[in-house]
Amino acid sequence: MLYIIGLGLGDERDITMRGLEAVKSCEKVYMEAYTSLLSFGLDSHGLSNLEKLYGKSITLADREMVEEKAHHILEEARHSHVAFLVVGDPFGATTHTDLVVRAKKMGIHVQIVHNASVLNAIGICGLQLYRYGQTVSIPFFTDSWRPDSFYEKIHSNRTMGLHTLCLLDIRVKEPTLESLARFGLVWFGLVWFGLLNFFLLVLFIVDAFFFFRGRKTYEPPRYMTINTAIEQLLEVVQEHQQPAYTEDTQCVGFARLGSDDQTIVAGTMRQLQMVDFGAPLHCLVITGNTHPLEEEMLEFYRCRT
Amino acid sequence: MLYIIGLGLGDERDITMRGLEAVKSCEKVYMEAYTSLLSFGLDSHGLSNLEKLYGKSITLADREMVEEKAHHILEEARHSHVAFLVVGDPFGATTHTDLVVRAKKMGIHVQIVHNASVLNAIGICGLQLYRYGQTVSIPFFTDSWRPDSFYEKIHSNRTMGLHTLCLLDIRVKEPTLESLARFGLVWFGLVWFGLLNFFLLVLFIVDAFFFFRGRKTYEPPRYMTINTAIEQLLEVVQEHQQPAYTEDTQCVGFARLGSDDQTIVAGTMRQLQMVDFGAPLHCLVITGNTHPLEEEMLEFYRCRT
Repeated sequence: MLYIIGLGLGDERDITMRGLEAVKSCEKVYMEAYTSLLSFGLDSHGLSNLEKLYGKSITLADREMVEEKAHHILEEARHSHVAFLVVGDPFGATTHTDLVVRAKKMGIHVQIVHNASVLNAIGICGLQLYRYGQTVSIPFFTDSWRPDSFYEKIHSNRTMGLHTLCLLDIRVKEPTLESLARFGLVWFGLVWFGLLNFFLLVLFIVDAFFFFRGRKTYEPPRYMTINTAIEQLLEVVQEHQQPAYTEDTQCVGFARLGSDDQTIVAGTMRQLQMVDFGAPLHCLVITGNTHPLEEEMLEFYRCRT
Repeated sequence: MLYIIGLGLGDERDITMRGLEAVKSCEKVYMEAYTSLLSFGLDSHGLSNLEKLYGKSITLADREMVEEKAHHILEEARHSHVAFLVVGDPFGATTHTDLVVRAKKMGIHVQIVHNASVLNAIGICGLQLYRYGQTVSIPFFTDSWRPDSFYEKIHSNRTMGLHTLCLLDIRVKEPTLESLARFGLVWFGLVWFGLLNFFLLVLFIVDAFFFFRGRKTYEPPRYMTINTAIEQLLEVVQEHQQPAYTEDTQCVGFARLGSDDQTIVAGTMRQLQMVDFGAPLHCLVITGNTHPLEEEMLEFYRCRT
């Protein structure tokens, strides 16, 4: 049996009783370590808190482990009860569909324990959840990579008067550009241009050997702030003739949503860009047309600068 | 202090530990009784289960009570800890924004405890939550009242390749048509046509007096099934030249989502119309464009008829 258990958004006390019962019945407990961990303060101390409450030792599973060792986890689940803990809801912003599909194909019984996710918790600001359009993700821009497919989605949401939830980029355990260049991009380029020959192949194998021997290096984790998101949003809008939003568009910024020290501020993009929202995780809502009750509720969070 | 606490979707064990702590700290506990109650089996037995677990007596608050006695509840919350329990998430499909606004205006501290709602729990079928457009509500049609504003929303979602969550009508404690006709529609009609005179005014006052003395009668509760929803959807689409969907459009039907006996079936509208989903609550997803991983997951729920 594989349990996929949502932990909610705040801290260890946000697990449901159903979830806690399930964790306690499991011989092995994994916890995803590749999305929104910070709200759980998952340093060694934070993890201890979880372990103390659940009465179980927890194995942190980063993205590599889940991708590379999924078969191992699933083999365990075939013969015993295994819990896989997920921040938020199992099918919230990040999906674990792939793990479920693989489990089901192996004939393993899968049980889901739901919990709050950012997708419903944003309701706290008063904007009605049924008046949201498509959710968008805003990735970190680099000098050479500035994908802006989110723009058209925001545009069509706002054309219909709908609000837009913007999920902001999280980079955890990203290989450094050096690693990538060595192992990925350069080789990809060479193969692409048909230059691959025996000599290169040998080099490739030697390189890959050392790479897998532990020479992979990682960037420090990065979490996009609301300020950066707005900066990128305003940069992208300049390239369009009919702007989907401006500096004066009303938004709501959320930091550490669902935790005891959450911060929620409503204001224009220009105003929110000046706000220090503090520690991650952040997300941003761009409002569409608002109703009077929505406005009344937003007033409580209004930026006073 | 007013706590608004989400109970999740299944049964009493779906409360979070944070929520349970809050309930236990409260002197008075109310529970909304006007939306999705059935999954909690809230007959007298079901309520006892909740009360036993929470160690508190619970006052059921129907819509009238919340609307008419909100001030009373809020006055209690001014001087003591009061919990208001809500099925799903406090800001899920149904909003309690109004209660929060009133509380905040009275200077009462409000604390929200989030939980799963149907809006994120539908992720279990494998359709990615960020690929949904606007959520729609489908109301029960009557002979004379057939509002179809949901159609245009489905149409625009599907034009963009997005999935649509359809929330299905719930009618709990609705005044009977007789009540309404006596008190509302007939009088409205007479006033509208300028026929109101002294004689009618006297009759009106007498009638209203008896009405408020307890002669209001209620329809038995009704919960729209997936079958009825599809029937209405197919009826509405016939009136449009460019159909947003057909009998062959892929959908996913959910019954009792989040509870132990939940039923999830994927199939065309025609297929789902033949399925007996059993007890409420039901909801329906109309798919947009699907990705291969989404398709793979839907296979597990595919209708075999």
